[in-house]
Amino acid sequence: MSAHLTIAATDGAARTGILSTRKGDIRTPAFMPVGTAGTVKAMYTDQVRETGADIILGNTYHLMLRPGAERIARLGGLHRFMNWQRPILTDSGGFQVMSLAQLRKMTEEGVAFQSHIDGSKHLLTPERSMEIQNFLGSDIVMVLDECTPHPATHDEARQSMELSMRWARRSRDHHRNLPNHGALFGIVQGSVYADVRQRSVATLEETGFDGYAVGGLAVGEGQEIMFRVLEETVPHMTSEKARYLMGVGKPDDIVGAVARGIDMFDCVLPTRSGRTGQAFTRYGPVNIRNARHAEDPRPLDENSDCPASRDYSRAYLHHLVKSNEILGAMLMTWHNLHYYQQLMADIRGAIAEGRFTAFQKRFAEDQTRGDIDPL
Amino acid sequence: MSAHLTIAATDGAARTGILSTRKGDIRTPAFMPVGTAGTVKAMYTDQVRETGADIILGNTYHLMLRPGAERIARLGGLHRFMNWQRPILTDSGGFQVMSLAQLRKMTEEGVAFQSHIDGSKHLLTPERSMEIQNFLGSDIVMVLDECTPHPATHDEARQSMELSMRWARRSRDHHRNLPNHGALFGIVQGSVYADVRQRSVATLEETGFDGYAVGGLAVGEGQEIMFRVLEETVPHMTSEKARYLMGVGKPDDIVGAVARGIDMFDCVLPTRSGRTGQAFTRYGPVNIRNARHAEDPRPLDENSDCPASRDYSRAYLHHLVKSNEILGAMLMTWHNLHYYQQLMADIRGAIAEGRFTAFQKRFAEDQTRGDIDPL
Repeated sequence: MSAHLTIAATDGAARTGILSTRKGDIRTPAFMPVGTAGTVKAMYTDQVRETGADIILGNTYHLMLRPGAERIARLGGLHRFMNWQRPILTDSGGFQVMSLAQLRKMTEEGVAFQSHIDGSKHLLTPERSMEIQNFLGSDIVMVLDECTPHPATHDEARQSMELSMRWARRSRDHHRNLPNHGALFGIVQGSVYADVRQRSVATLEETGFDGYAVGGLAVGEGQEIMFRVLEETVPHMTSEKARYLMGVGKPDDIVGAVARGIDMFDCVLPTRSGRTGQAFTRYGPVNIRNARHAEDPRPLDENSDCPASRDYSRAYLHHLVKSNEILGAMLMTWHNLHYYQQLMADIRGAIAEGRFTAFQKRFAEDQTRGDIDPL
Repeated sequence: MSAHLTIAATDGAARTGILSTRKGDIRTPAFMPVGTAGTVKAMYTDQVRETGADIILGNTYHLMLRPGAERIARLGGLHRFMNWQRPILTDSGGFQVMSLAQLRKMTEEGVAFQSHIDGSKHLLTPERSMEIQNFLGSDIVMVLDECTPHPATHDEARQSMELSMRWARRSRDHHRNLPNHGALFGIVQGSVYADVRQRSVATLEETGFDGYAVGGLAVGEGQEIMFRVLEETVPHMTSEKARYLMGVGKPDDIVGAVARGIDMFDCVLPTRSGRTGQAFTRYGPVNIRNARHAEDPRPLDENSDCPASRDYSRAYLHHLVKSNEILGAMLMTWHNLHYYQQLMADIRGAIAEGRFTAFQKRFAEDQTRGDIDPL
């Protein structure tokens, strides 16, 4: 199965269209909420859908450790397990092995590690990553790669990229022999070096994938460098396939990356921030824990069609979050995911109508207003 | 404002009807979900309503400390604050002062204590309790009483009851002068002693209240003694007003208390158990953390019309609860509250149709089946 991209309109480097998968269409540019361990935290799946999400992301690392990929397969796959019947993209597990697992040892073969949950030993190879994602029933599978740490020297970046390219080919070779496999995306690496990035793009396209991700960004390099790398990388990628910027990001990161030709995003920010009390709004972020919200009767966004944004006062959200009430995480996450999906819908509309530059300008002005005025 | 009870049918001592309040009708026997700190934990208010709840309970102790009764009043009252427009019953705060607060000192005047949250000093008197509940906008206000500890000697029980009766009268005298006051319920005390309980009933009815609660039960005395106390107490209470058994209970406690003439219940059990992984079902409790559920594809109740009960496998719930995922608390709480409200609807139907004894027998048989068979 492949993932077919149809571009409906472009505006500069920005583009909007439909990515078709076996589980349904994804409107691009798309934001994928992260469903780490088989759940978009603090959200029912029908709510996730109602915010406008066409696809969610599942984390291979978390799911392989608990409840286990084979167990999910026996229970009918991840879609049935978590009650989400639309497309699912799964990551390869590699990124989180490097950030969460214990006693990691990387070789040409793959990465050996111990679970952060129970200390059990695992070996994640390109082949095993493909098997796990296949057991999960993933509609868009990601190759196993090494997310090059930042900063890296040119030589380190090149060697790391080359390993990722060998793993990408092994991933492809194994994936295409698995039953009922989903689409497979390659991942461009190369740190901040244009020549390494471009070499990675060429190598991946030689192998051939259903879509291409840009990995190894949003790892501490800063927005300016990230945008520069995109400018040096994306124009070398085929315009025929979807382009996915992994792990990004803040609203302004997304708008800037769309302007540089990106179609897909994922990030824990709206869900994680929801649990810690940060709300994203048209007028910038709001820290709902701040005492100035304690008696503010206004909702986060009275014009929203999301109940979480419209039907609860900032005073109530402040109370819930300060009291560590589960409903605080539920409402703040719901609001944030709705904000992100509304942002993506606004982006798509602006591109379709050829006014993306004006949209960008207005977006930046609104964001720097620093939230609406206090009472 | 009063709370008017209309009895539609009786079956033995059990009765079913409607308790009318200024915010709407309550079908009795009724179970009130507990909304401790302005939220029925892990539930949206529209879900609470959809499970069949006509009324919820708010905790004066929690709300007076955070965010504060006056603050809630300035924000338009508890109904608006938490987005629940139907009836709310508030407790007096006394029970939780004794179980949660620090450095308590009880006098004839009231209870001085320090907040368990920030150590701030407070004095809860009958008058202050009435004011707080009035600030919250409570539709059914409870008098301040002392929940007599168990065990207590006859003399201790009598002295404690007499203090509660003096506080009940002070509560009534202050309450009726407050603006827009809701209904006021008295609370029968007297520990396990029939004569003390009956003296309490007579004293309260002499003062006159809109309804009567039985307090000081479910505090460790056991179901057998609780039922005996109800048998010695309820027949002495007027049949014209609602009878509320405070803090009860397990499903079989509720069925047994209805058989002894009780109309209203509240308990944290369905919500608290939902957060710790215990599900209530027709066939008895299910500890979803148990390893035998790890690959069980069946939902908690495939015949339920509650999505939480019907659309998620026990394997998935097991995974969520073991992983401490918020969605686990959300789904388990939703299931439990739906189970409780369905139980109350079944009870009301059985009484209305004069088959409550048969219902009780079938209920007890089902509960002891110890959940449905393992796969």
